[in-house]
Amino acid sequence: MDRETILRDLSQKTDSKIILLVMDGLGGLPINGKTELETAKTPHLDELAAKGTCGLSDPVSMGITPGSGPAHLSLFGYDPLKYILGRGILEALGSGVDVGPKDLVARGNFATHKNGIIIDRRAGRIPTPENEILCRKINSSLKQRKEIGVKLFPGKEHRFVVKFSGEGLSDALTDADPQKENKPREKTQALTGEAQHTADLVNTFMDDVTEILENSPKANTVILRGFSKYPTIPSMQELFHLTPAAVANYPMYKGLARLIGMEILDAGQEIQDLFDTLEKYYSDFDFFYVHVKKTDSYGEDGNFGEKVKVIEKTDAEIPRILSLKPDVLVVTSDHSTPSLLKGHSWHPNPFLLFSSTSQPDLVSAFSERECSRGYLGRFQAVNALPLMLAHAQKLQKFGA
Amino acid sequence: MDRETILRDLSQKTDSKIILLVMDGLGGLPINGKTELETAKTPHLDELAAKGTCGLSDPVSMGITPGSGPAHLSLFGYDPLKYILGRGILEALGSGVDVGPKDLVARGNFATHKNGIIIDRRAGRIPTPENEILCRKINSSLKQRKEIGVKLFPGKEHRFVVKFSGEGLSDALTDADPQKENKPREKTQALTGEAQHTADLVNTFMDDVTEILENSPKANTVILRGFSKYPTIPSMQELFHLTPAAVANYPMYKGLARLIGMEILDAGQEIQDLFDTLEKYYSDFDFFYVHVKKTDSYGEDGNFGEKVKVIEKTDAEIPRILSLKPDVLVVTSDHSTPSLLKGHSWHPNPFLLFSSTSQPDLVSAFSERECSRGYLGRFQAVNALPLMLAHAQKLQKFGA
Repeated sequence: MDRETILRDLSQKTDSKIILLVMDGLGGLPINGKTELETAKTPHLDELAAKGTCGLSDPVSMGITPGSGPAHLSLFGYDPLKYILGRGILEALGSGVDVGPKDLVARGNFATHKNGIIIDRRAGRIPTPENEILCRKINSSLKQRKEIGVKLFPGKEHRFVVKFSGEGLSDALTDADPQKENKPREKTQALTGEAQHTADLVNTFMDDVTEILENSPKANTVILRGFSKYPTIPSMQELFHLTPAAVANYPMYKGLARLIGMEILDAGQEIQDLFDTLEKYYSDFDFFYVHVKKTDSYGEDGNFGEKVKVIEKTDAEIPRILSLKPDVLVVTSDHSTPSLLKGHSWHPNPFLLFSSTSQPDLVSAFSERECSRGYLGRFQAVNALPLMLAHAQKLQKFGA
Repeated sequence: MDRETILRDLSQKTDSKIILLVMDGLGGLPINGKTELETAKTPHLDELAAKGTCGLSDPVSMGITPGSGPAHLSLFGYDPLKYILGRGILEALGSGVDVGPKDLVARGNFATHKNGIIIDRRAGRIPTPENEILCRKINSSLKQRKEIGVKLFPGKEHRFVVKFSGEGLSDALTDADPQKENKPREKTQALTGEAQHTADLVNTFMDDVTEILENSPKANTVILRGFSKYPTIPSMQELFHLTPAAVANYPMYKGLARLIGMEILDAGQEIQDLFDTLEKYYSDFDFFYVHVKKTDSYGEDGNFGEKVKVIEKTDAEIPRILSLKPDVLVVTSDHSTPSLLKGHSWHPNPFLLFSSTSQPDLVSAFSERECSRGYLGRFQAVNALPLMLAHAQKLQKFGA
């Protein structure tokens, strides 16, 4: 018997409520002796840490730097090594593309070819507005000649997402990408017999697009990779008997949340908007995922000071959360994004759980260093959801 | 290679001795700022904690509240997700029913039916003495008509255990239980072809009993669930080359211990009796499981004060244990039973290991909070036995 089966068997519907506040990329590294979290003035989080139970969590496993997909799945109780999301689907979700169960998506680049040889895999990083014009042009031209639905969604610079819609599409396809410059244009190849039909469609599509772009100076062909169908993942309702909602305002996180059955509650752009939404819908759900994005964004920019400010702004909202009297409140990050590294990292997440059944430990403030001596020790983030369920009295006893 | 195979290969017979003292349900939650263990005066355990190595262990995994079965199996080195014990066998062990390798057991309820419709699944919770009379009546009436051995063992109120003895019995059976009132009596169904013979026997038995109980006003039929055969579990001799004994006085724990090859050393009802028994048989075995039950019982009752007293009484016996000079002494619980929750919980167990090779850590007293900064950190309880074997020099090197 595995952990997932046990949780499915033991979890039960109750009236208790759980709030999971994710400060994206919260964990950091010290600059001048202190991390962003240690630098920020966080009186409310410090008080919660002193009253509750803390620890440090590894999103996937020690040393692994996760993308947002596996890092979040893990926090939501899904084994990130079991549920692997294709690059294409993550890119599509991140671009706000509405993907259905029959759709096939892939990541695309506009590229430059000369006599069929790819001489620039990024078409000289064309400006985003040009990308948008090209996508519109291709979408309208293709409409007239295809019986299958195909649509391009522009991204930044040379990047786009393509979505194929129709019956019997397969993602058992190799990348249609020569990987290096000065190699011939690459077709996709079917990895199974059933995928041959899809491979033919994709290759015809690529030829059609190349024909449409014939007179474009730089972006005169495309390469595609990371073909993915909509993944089959059991919902949080099915696995944990929760009625979950996401309070998030970035497409990637909304898409991910929708994938596992969360209702998406749109929030405005400011941090306080998240909590307005939380208050407004508080009676309608029993699990809330609240996502603060900017801690990660400023971490990626290497902007230590602004990351500190986002942490402080979030801390100021903690009393509003507590006034809702959730049975369980968890504050953590999906992964670390130290400003020092300007990117995601493998460092563990500070983790804080507060409920009437949490055991006070020796932690006196909310920081990476303090959490390291917490009651939860160093643990796999996939255990976070079972812990929340347990403290919310949503898990029955295992065995007699 | 899995952990179990490695331990089987590496463990070796030596003269060293291990004592595992389990204070059932020891872990707790604070009332007025302190847990039961923090409140109790435990000078001897505190000294051991200061000298030895401590940690916090999860019986199954984080957030999971275990029953006594999986919690103990884990402490004895058995993966509790691999060795799942059926409800029937645990109930039988807990009732002191002697179950053999060919027997089939199930949990039963006396119930009330009217024209074949179950109108009370608990027969109005008949008094236990009435249950005992009915079991005797059924056992003697059945004896005359069955070629297969069947025997009922009364439990509390409407509950009993039934044991079928004979050749070729199978537990691949559905529950013979309508689950809800006002539904027809339910037969068991065979889940495999081989189980059909057993299903027929069980269904005939249920009809026979209903006939015997015809004139009983309330308890006029039975429902059965949790059919289990005696599980096949490798013994501790086989897995760890130990000669183990259990010093316990509750049927459930004696039954569990017997299941994995322990010799059962009966002890009286008082805590000191356990240690008299331990002293008496100390030269005959190399692994002793000593079980203090009342910490759990008082936890279940929500009786903080009495739980504290049991802890103190056990602490007073520690010098007697130490005078035996065991090579390894572990003191821990199988699961937590906070008085505050009046039941088993998912909180980890305080864990203390004392031996000449244990590393002193920063822990200065035996409590949940102190153990949280112990050298062992937060770990899976299934690692406890390998640790004991290692400190007793009973494990060879893995690999060259």
